[in-house]
Amino acid sequence: MTAPSPTHDRFHRAVLDLQDRIVEALQARDPGLEVVEDPYRRTDHAGDPGGGGRTRALRGTVIEAGGVNVSAVYGALDPRFAEQLGGAGDDRLWAAGISLILHPRNPRVPTVHMNFRMIALGDRTWFGGGADLTPFYPHEGDFRHFHRTWRDATAPLGTWDAWKAACDAYFVNAHRDGEMRGIGGVFFDHWRRGTLAEDADTVLALSEHFLPSYLPILDARKDEAFDADDEAFMLFRRGRYVEFNLLHDRGTVFGLRSNGRTDSILVSLPPRVTFGYRWAPASGSVHARMMDGYRPRDWLDPEAS
Amino acid sequence: MTAPSPTHDRFHRAVLDLQDRIVEALQARDPGLEVVEDPYRRTDHAGDPGGGGRTRALRGTVIEAGGVNVSAVYGALDPRFAEQLGGAGDDRLWAAGISLILHPRNPRVPTVHMNFRMIALGDRTWFGGGADLTPFYPHEGDFRHFHRTWRDATAPLGTWDAWKAACDAYFVNAHRDGEMRGIGGVFFDHWRRGTLAEDADTVLALSEHFLPSYLPILDARKDEAFDADDEAFMLFRRGRYVEFNLLHDRGTVFGLRSNGRTDSILVSLPPRVTFGYRWAPASGSVHARMMDGYRPRDWLDPEAS
Repeated sequence: MTAPSPTHDRFHRAVLDLQDRIVEALQARDPGLEVVEDPYRRTDHAGDPGGGGRTRALRGTVIEAGGVNVSAVYGALDPRFAEQLGGAGDDRLWAAGISLILHPRNPRVPTVHMNFRMIALGDRTWFGGGADLTPFYPHEGDFRHFHRTWRDATAPLGTWDAWKAACDAYFVNAHRDGEMRGIGGVFFDHWRRGTLAEDADTVLALSEHFLPSYLPILDARKDEAFDADDEAFMLFRRGRYVEFNLLHDRGTVFGLRSNGRTDSILVSLPPRVTFGYRWAPASGSVHARMMDGYRPRDWLDPEAS
Repeated sequence: MTAPSPTHDRFHRAVLDLQDRIVEALQARDPGLEVVEDPYRRTDHAGDPGGGGRTRALRGTVIEAGGVNVSAVYGALDPRFAEQLGGAGDDRLWAAGISLILHPRNPRVPTVHMNFRMIALGDRTWFGGGADLTPFYPHEGDFRHFHRTWRDATAPLGTWDAWKAACDAYFVNAHRDGEMRGIGGVFFDHWRRGTLAEDADTVLALSEHFLPSYLPILDARKDEAFDADDEAFMLFRRGRYVEFNLLHDRGTVFGLRSNGRTDSILVSLPPRVTFGYRWAPASGSVHARMMDGYRPRDWLDPEAS
């Protein structure tokens, strides 16, 4: 067994099961959804077998493109990279997780990202993850649903305020004057609280809140009429998504530097994108209002919305 | 005077003049070319005035999008960044240069990038720059013209082999199995040879070879017929261009970390882009042949083409 303990192995199997259920839920909503499944193996920093993953790349009419990936990797890390991760002197890694990105075709449906992971470096194990929403249209009721779902999910842990703030702080294009990628959600890293088994249960229970946080929004909006301005704004904001993922995202850097599979990692990039010099939505437009939403805000404060 | 010497100031004025002449040459070929000129000022790491630049963003029918920027910046650098640049203990910067990127509308016309710069850190001054071509169609005669122009330009210096190899080594997507962004050209950095005035003359003379290296290709191809496969391949390769610029390009990182103007720096990003999971041109197609060109090759060796 390559996992450090049965709990690590159990976490891996649970996220594989979640991957199955997510893809089924999407296929039910997008009957023509093309699912390309690629199991892959990787080698570690020393060139030895180092686990791998199961990529499912999606392409459809409701979900224009996306990916639901599970990976379980292990073995030697580049020592310089292990040190950055906080494992000075110990470069033996085991990490398993699920990550998802969906880029819907309809600009009225938000892009969504989710990730839950369990990482062991040497004899220390921790968890990380979260979910964040990137809308292109100010359907603020949808944002409240997403935030409320994650607030309620984290209520037993008492971590909502901290994890909501961490998400606001993480998904930021620092080079764009601190503009957020979307409207946030939850984000946590280096998390431990109880025994290993208890904490794995907690994180797996959290991961079950992804579908209820997103599917009602997808169902409500996927057939909503949209116009050319909506689409232009979505393509522009997808450009910001690319900027964040390639310039700032630690998950992308972790993957590319730990000898991950490039196509699996960059399945996160949107299918069609535009970049434009000083592009901005028309002043006073609904999209200009959406721009104001890409700043930290308490979407659950009835006074604020 | 903010420049460290009259030679530094002369270099700055010369690249401003080149910027004018390049934009005129492009306007002559793309009568509807929209040129948005934005002069801007920046502050240095200490918050003091730190120079600025003159951005000219382009949008037209021959040149779908692009930019020709001149900047001249000075003042205090982030000390950690100064150390990376090789200026341990001295964080006073002066840097001036011209950079250009053109993304033509017609996939038969290559994208092109050029940059020439003069950098002073403390009491040391050096030069860098180069030009590289990113074609989407295997018009190998065009590639030979581009390489030949730069080989002849560098002949008096005896640096062709080294600078051609440096270009092949620099514009590489390491995360894509070493695939190059395009088909190379010339690249040099930290260059000095004679007196400051002599070296400035040499680099300015080199910069004059940009227009003859590219305009004949633009003139020959801008009205060439193309099909949907040509366009799809261009949009896909533009995705690789984005990956390189945001993941690997030191110029982009230098600009964003030295408090440059984000819109001026990221004017390099292509206007329309696609990303696709494991996207590849059809086997045996002309575009598959083009893919083979994104590896180091001596385009001037008659045996090789």
